[in-house]
Amino acid sequence: MDKFLQAAIDEAKKGLAAGGIPIGSVLVIDGEILGRGHNQRVQKGSTVLHAEMDCLENTGRIKAADYKRATLYSTLSPCDMCSGTVLLYGIPKVVIGENKTFCGPEEYVKSRGVQLDVVDDPECYQLMQSFIQTNPELWNEDIGE
Amino acid sequence: MDKFLQAAIDEAKKGLAAGGIPIGSVLVIDGEILGRGHNQRVQKGSTVLHAEMDCLENTGRIKAADYKRATLYSTLSPCDMCSGTVLLYGIPKVVIGENKTFCGPEEYVKSRGVQLDVVDDPECYQLMQSFIQTNPELWNEDIGE
Repeated sequence: MDKFLQAAIDEAKKGLAAGGIPIGSVLVIDGEILGRGHNQRVQKGSTVLHAEMDCLENTGRIKAADYKRATLYSTLSPCDMCSGTVLLYGIPKVVIGENKTFCGPEEYVKSRGVQLDVVDDPECYQLMQSFIQTNPELWNEDIGE
Repeated sequence: MDKFLQAAIDEAKKGLAAGGIPIGSVLVIDGEILGRGHNQRVQKGSTVLHAEMDCLENTGRIKAADYKRATLYSTLSPCDMCSGTVLLYGIPKVVIGENKTFCGPEEYVKSRGVQLDVVDDPECYQLMQSFIQTNPELWNEDIGE
């Protein structure tokens, strides 16, 4: 298991333990984790802090050149919002735990020059599946449905 | 002047008065302002709270059906991140103060079914031009450059 994807999964589990939606994310630059985050819809009543957004917010203000050699890890395929944020900051690579539960605008993001690596990790998938079974309304709210 | 665009401009000025980047936003549903916000890069050290994001965060958790009859006002053309958020929540219409200073992925957003009305308001433009002249680095940071 990729240690950075594992760190994103750890974030997802931290969110789950706090009653939240189990999606986690880390930002890696030059082989080091600069920021970590997880979905904050339940915990902070947030509509914008998806895992990737929380991760970037926790990373704080870094230089444009740093984003441009970063890799963003997420346990789930980034939605339109999080994909747009990747494009805004010119993050060149995203590692995605799984995209079966939900698949963001991956083709569009690739067409804008971003490399997307889909791991198809069973633990990422299982975390979401069991959460959605118990909390379908929360999940739908999180993706605007 | 459209009173909702005026409210977005008031938010931009509030941000400017606090030392921030003068971009403001309001969310309108059924003729009422449900949320207001402005860019928080300087004030909160935030990398994700652009005006539109701050506005949606301040609006709080509302129903999917409510987003789907909302209009988002922004003094400046929404960037990739903010445009993605409009797509995530299915907000059908965005009123844009100006898009000369910066133009987000407007064609893509329109191709996804969102109506974009560009007002070309001179005050919105002037606010940004005079800010950028004094603070070019802050502005570049805000758009990932």
